[in-house]
Amino acid sequence: MRSREACEALDAADPLAAVRDRFVLPDGEIYLDGNSLGVLGRSVAPRMAQVIEEEWGKGLIRSWNEAGWYSATRRVGATIARLIGAAADEVIVADSTSVNLFKVLMAALRLRPDRRKVLVAEGDFPTDLYIADGVARLMGVTFATFDPQMPEDAFDDQTAAVVLTEVNYKSGRIYDMAQITAAAHARGALAIFDLSHSAGVMEVALNKGQADFAIGCTYKYLNGGPGAPAYIFAASRHHAAMENPITGWFGHADPFRFSGDFAPATGMARMLSGTPPTLSLLALEEALKVFDGVDLAAVRAKSIGLTDLFIRLSDEVLTPLGFALASPRDAAVRGSQVSLTHEHGYAIMQALIARGITGDFRAPDIVRFGFVPLYVRYVDVFDCVMAMRDIMQTRAWDTDAFRTRKAVT
Amino acid sequence: MRSREACEALDAADPLAAVRDRFVLPDGEIYLDGNSLGVLGRSVAPRMAQVIEEEWGKGLIRSWNEAGWYSATRRVGATIARLIGAAADEVIVADSTSVNLFKVLMAALRLRPDRRKVLVAEGDFPTDLYIADGVARLMGVTFATFDPQMPEDAFDDQTAAVVLTEVNYKSGRIYDMAQITAAAHARGALAIFDLSHSAGVMEVALNKGQADFAIGCTYKYLNGGPGAPAYIFAASRHHAAMENPITGWFGHADPFRFSGDFAPATGMARMLSGTPPTLSLLALEEALKVFDGVDLAAVRAKSIGLTDLFIRLSDEVLTPLGFALASPRDAAVRGSQVSLTHEHGYAIMQALIARGITGDFRAPDIVRFGFVPLYVRYVDVFDCVMAMRDIMQTRAWDTDAFRTRKAVT
Repeated sequence: MRSREACEALDAADPLAAVRDRFVLPDGEIYLDGNSLGVLGRSVAPRMAQVIEEEWGKGLIRSWNEAGWYSATRRVGATIARLIGAAADEVIVADSTSVNLFKVLMAALRLRPDRRKVLVAEGDFPTDLYIADGVARLMGVTFATFDPQMPEDAFDDQTAAVVLTEVNYKSGRIYDMAQITAAAHARGALAIFDLSHSAGVMEVALNKGQADFAIGCTYKYLNGGPGAPAYIFAASRHHAAMENPITGWFGHADPFRFSGDFAPATGMARMLSGTPPTLSLLALEEALKVFDGVDLAAVRAKSIGLTDLFIRLSDEVLTPLGFALASPRDAAVRGSQVSLTHEHGYAIMQALIARGITGDFRAPDIVRFGFVPLYVRYVDVFDCVMAMRDIMQTRAWDTDAFRTRKAVT
Repeated sequence: MRSREACEALDAADPLAAVRDRFVLPDGEIYLDGNSLGVLGRSVAPRMAQVIEEEWGKGLIRSWNEAGWYSATRRVGATIARLIGAAADEVIVADSTSVNLFKVLMAALRLRPDRRKVLVAEGDFPTDLYIADGVARLMGVTFATFDPQMPEDAFDDQTAAVVLTEVNYKSGRIYDMAQITAAAHARGALAIFDLSHSAGVMEVALNKGQADFAIGCTYKYLNGGPGAPAYIFAASRHHAAMENPITGWFGHADPFRFSGDFAPATGMARMLSGTPPTLSLLALEEALKVFDGVDLAAVRAKSIGLTDLFIRLSDEVLTPLGFALASPRDAAVRGSQVSLTHEHGYAIMQALIARGITGDFRAPDIVRFGFVPLYVRYVDVFDCVMAMRDIMQTRAWDTDAFRTRKAVT
């Protein structure tokens, strides 16, 4: 087993070590839940004080022009584009991931009007299943799930669109975007990706993979803050023909002409609907600055280093205590998280949180740890596993206080 | 003509005068654009520093439970309910006004599945027209406008739903919610109201008027900040049957069970879709505290006082200079704004803004002034009219700098 000293040496040699200082981490806390809510960037609070006190408080309505509020959806989209292998004008920030998937799926159905089926990968995050099911009921088409390991079996000439989360939220498994897309395109279907668990911790290659559309959340690995607005990618080849079902004024070609007739904006702006939640949007913009100068290949390399270490330690220390690995052992298909199963997973996670080590729980029995290379250290991995061992050996988890469920887990 | 001294006397006697201190107003600025973007409440910046630094920065994921983030959509909805004549559990905060109108219109069509027509009042804010048009095209029904002064002529037994903004964004005219609703109900149609220009400056009476659904913006008279999330009202009689077309996980009965099947939440929560933009939502919550202890009848009385004064002064001073009144002269049907038309309206407004008096312009020729009783004074009204007179008499508006259009007007 690796020693804590060996982990300290890895941290000392980490090329990303200095990036950790761009975040405000609570004293003494080991935070392994950046795949639920990312950590606060150090510059966000002062920036938001300026946004609120100066831009809103003093600039008032003028700030839509003078402080660049009006262009923020496109500007922040362009920043995210670099992280996901897209062109700057192929990404826009809007609404929530759920609303964006609704818009994109509806757009895909209109691009494939003769087809009667939408597919989502089985085991994908529930909101993706719910939205696709809702869209299918609304449009009178069929909704089904498919096995992302054997997509060819499910796709046929009735398939309008397929939805897949590039990294599964429970297992952390990476699916091959290019392979899924090729299988979809071979049958004439459109491929839509949810990047919520991949963007920010690995190199996402939307255009290299020929993806048609993508959506993603910004409050996990992009550290945008609670409920930060989501984004939409559409490959430029779809820009002219795609239609947004929610035709609000921000998607209009000239919203401030106040015409009574809808005319869609050129490019990604047509995927906007209402006025964006600008405080949340500007917090996201500031948060994204932690990625300035950061090489995503280095991020991915450290991500593998952290998750490999966790699995090795877990094999030695936690497997004998009843835990089982629920994430891929092969780093090539593993995202930046590791999930373990344990029948008392919920209470164990609560006990761990009480010790200042935060991961999360996903029903029915998964304890899930996100390893964000920008701020998680190798010693954090070591300390987490040792704390779990102690919790199991002392049965510290076995109290009512830790067994009682909270509203959000 | 009233003197400035007379206006000062009105301000001295104003029972709402002290409420102005709850806002941060830029030094020397007269702000008559609270119907576009409300003024910053004094407590919002310190509250948001706490939200960002403590709740997000230190509480991290735990704040969904411990800081009450998870219940904020319902909690803030209940606060807004008091302002719009609804029960606390009939209002929830979600998404944007445009997205919410989409959801409500789709829900209304499902509640009237045999009907083939949706109507929006002519001259309503463009996004309402665009959204209804989009919904109609999506669902294969007819979209048309109706004259809100003669609703009976337009409503028939094919009408599923009618949409009306209670106070028109251009003219400031108030329409009679109870009358429109009665006319809709007489033909079996549902009545949907947009409260963007009424909530916060007058007593809105949704339940007294038997309204079915309502939506509204929170960044105007509710002072929630740029793009602050909007709200949805549904009368409790519709809660069991209404369906949200955008079936995201926050509208699920038990989102953290992560079930693969969608089951709608009970009550208004089913109208949620994705994770709400929580920084913007909590800024709105704090902003609403300026209404604590404020009597909306007193707000309405002062609103009439301010707009009556503006019209009287305008009749004397501005009409001879080429302005015409584009708002009702009768205070009973006038909201908290006054619009004037002038062929050089855009440049005149820019010249006025350059003097520290902010209203706004609505194409093609309307200069629009919002009089927010919580922070606008009678002397502000006086000073605005006198500044406009001076701008006209000196032709100060007639320069290229003021004629050049900005992106957002």
